[in-house]
Amino acid sequence: MALVNEHLLRLLDNYLFTDITRKVNSFKVTHPKAEVIHLGIGDVTRPIPAACREAMCKAVNDLGKAETFHGYGPEQGYDFLIEAILKHDYASRGVSLSASEIFISDGAKTDTGNLGDILRHDNSIGVTDPIYPAYIDSNVSSGRAGYIDEWGKWSNVVYIPCRMENNFIPPIPEQRIDIIYLCFPNNPTGAVLTKNELKNWVNYAIKNDALIIFDAAYEAYIRQPDIPHSIYEIKGAKKVAIEIRSFSKTAGFTGVRCGYTVIPKEVTAATLNGERISLNKLWLRRQTTKFNGASYISQRGAEAVYTPQGQEEVKTMIDYYMENARLMKKALGGTGLKVFGGENAPYLWVKAPDGMSSWKFFDKLLYDAQVVSTPGIGFGPSGEGYVRLTAFNDRRQCEEGIKRICHYL
Amino acid sequence: MALVNEHLLRLLDNYLFTDITRKVNSFKVTHPKAEVIHLGIGDVTRPIPAACREAMCKAVNDLGKAETFHGYGPEQGYDFLIEAILKHDYASRGVSLSASEIFISDGAKTDTGNLGDILRHDNSIGVTDPIYPAYIDSNVSSGRAGYIDEWGKWSNVVYIPCRMENNFIPPIPEQRIDIIYLCFPNNPTGAVLTKNELKNWVNYAIKNDALIIFDAAYEAYIRQPDIPHSIYEIKGAKKVAIEIRSFSKTAGFTGVRCGYTVIPKEVTAATLNGERISLNKLWLRRQTTKFNGASYISQRGAEAVYTPQGQEEVKTMIDYYMENARLMKKALGGTGLKVFGGENAPYLWVKAPDGMSSWKFFDKLLYDAQVVSTPGIGFGPSGEGYVRLTAFNDRRQCEEGIKRICHYL
Repeated sequence: MALVNEHLLRLLDNYLFTDITRKVNSFKVTHPKAEVIHLGIGDVTRPIPAACREAMCKAVNDLGKAETFHGYGPEQGYDFLIEAILKHDYASRGVSLSASEIFISDGAKTDTGNLGDILRHDNSIGVTDPIYPAYIDSNVSSGRAGYIDEWGKWSNVVYIPCRMENNFIPPIPEQRIDIIYLCFPNNPTGAVLTKNELKNWVNYAIKNDALIIFDAAYEAYIRQPDIPHSIYEIKGAKKVAIEIRSFSKTAGFTGVRCGYTVIPKEVTAATLNGERISLNKLWLRRQTTKFNGASYISQRGAEAVYTPQGQEEVKTMIDYYMENARLMKKALGGTGLKVFGGENAPYLWVKAPDGMSSWKFFDKLLYDAQVVSTPGIGFGPSGEGYVRLTAFNDRRQCEEGIKRICHYL
Repeated sequence: MALVNEHLLRLLDNYLFTDITRKVNSFKVTHPKAEVIHLGIGDVTRPIPAACREAMCKAVNDLGKAETFHGYGPEQGYDFLIEAILKHDYASRGVSLSASEIFISDGAKTDTGNLGDILRHDNSIGVTDPIYPAYIDSNVSSGRAGYIDEWGKWSNVVYIPCRMENNFIPPIPEQRIDIIYLCFPNNPTGAVLTKNELKNWVNYAIKNDALIIFDAAYEAYIRQPDIPHSIYEIKGAKKVAIEIRSFSKTAGFTGVRCGYTVIPKEVTAATLNGERISLNKLWLRRQTTKFNGASYISQRGAEAVYTPQGQEEVKTMIDYYMENARLMKKALGGTGLKVFGGENAPYLWVKAPDGMSSWKFFDKLLYDAQVVSTPGIGFGPSGEGYVRLTAFNDRRQCEEGIKRICHYL
């Protein structure tokens, strides 16, 4: 008989969002007239740039003529998009990469999950805590995370706490870790790493022969000029780091689906015999076996992000969300609440007052202000006592939501 | 140090297409004036239906207004597409499935590869031989295929020979196999299974508690009315079969990227303790962890395939390719060559004359007729002595190519 992958069974149902939905639905039943405002969503809401829409309609029409028809594209993506990425995202910041080091995909979540395919099942994992749950979940499903304990921690995962006490900057661990996930600007805390702080991580990885998976999905939200957008701005990172990027939060592509992963030729991992294998080559094999390239239409849309018009429209969109974040942080801060993030990221990380738990504060915000947040505990043990608010809603909704929270407080 | 997944190292570079390209390039260097005709390609060339293009442009414009913006969609796909699939692909053939049994994806290759994630690494695998190489390659990369021997066979894979002697119909194996891949209409042989032949496979799976992964990517090419389009037309199949479908060959979506996988609720596999686990539930967990849904634009395009206009256009496109196949088969058959397939599939499976090997015949066709084919040996040991020709090219190219082959013969 066919046997299942039992590791997947260890992956508990994602109670976080099920529980949020359940709680919101009960609230609505008992308060049918209340207008609930969602400030917990991690999805964008603004229309995608006209430059991207025009490019995508043109791409659709390309598919309507035999002369401009595009069938299967290269699994690693079209050169037109790769060249635009190399020029605008890397060369412009002094980072030199080659076309074969960029792999276009249908999104960062896919790549984050599938990267595990090229790595051995028993590597140890390190994550900052709190963290985007998909990093751990995808490792659980291949058995790499080990077993979960009563506090919700996995046995083969090192949790690096990011708390108010350390300004949400992950301290360099004392032990060796094989694979470390870093996401900066951070989801959920909104924290960023300075060049020096990121350099410490690169040096740790070099010294310990570790691999860093650097998720830079929110780099477009960085406002401070001295914060690195790419880990490759740090010397030596090309030897130890894979970087994941996305057009989802940059250009509103959460429904369009396009992202990319950078694997420099120098990044290697070892066989049991100690032979060093290029992860670039291994990822290419993985992708050519299990992937048929991202949509031609989406890739043309992503290319248009880099046109002058596209860049202008993306800037306007991000400015809009960041102005939301600024207004929200200012108003909440005025009440005495401790509010973090929101300056180089679209996320506010809010400490619950009076030592309240995440869920307790979530309930209060829902029942007393009709605002939906995301309980911090859903992002890991160190998220307890916080909630995440996002700046992705409409301005008026953000303002009204925050007004109600301030009023309740 | 981080360790690599060594199983992936066993996956040899795909020499087949590298070798074809290398041979074609050398030919071009020595014959700069020759006009080479490609009859080996497995990719479509006709424009996609206008109905799909209109729907996709409209979808792009939906993303341009806040009121109709679509961000992250459901990981398993939008209901509008799922409902169209249920009605047109299944209810119309007497198959009743529920919406939660359909999973929309970015393509059949992705699903074929990723399905391995929900199955244990040591299940035994059965494949018809010759076969689409991605089935085996994706199993190699997780260690499930075992080791390769000197004849190019993997130790944990049962090869079920489909040869002229058995009309390319796979005989029911005598031993137990855990997971069996069936692709009908078949790539590369073009063979189809009658209802009775498919029933034998379903009965085998029920009796042996095996899982069938049924790839129906070419079902739209079936012309004979009594050939099943879906494995679920066979009683009992819902307990033992997963079906994979694609819009790539149906509607020319190889560059658009959309496909789907059907996992009925009744299909289960076992834990080591014998507990039966629903593969539908397990696949949903896999997809929500590692996938963020197919592009909204592609899904709207796929939905339009099912409109009356879309259906008409798809029919015209498939008629075009199948008329290519008919002309090619007729002309080649007239030369005394043994030609199979091409009646319910876009593929012709051609026996090399005089006991020639696949590669020898490939070389002859290239040098004497300037036609590129695909050597059958590239699809597995039982493909030796054959080449695959496809009907996906332009009519004039197909006719000219075949004329040259006939002339050379």
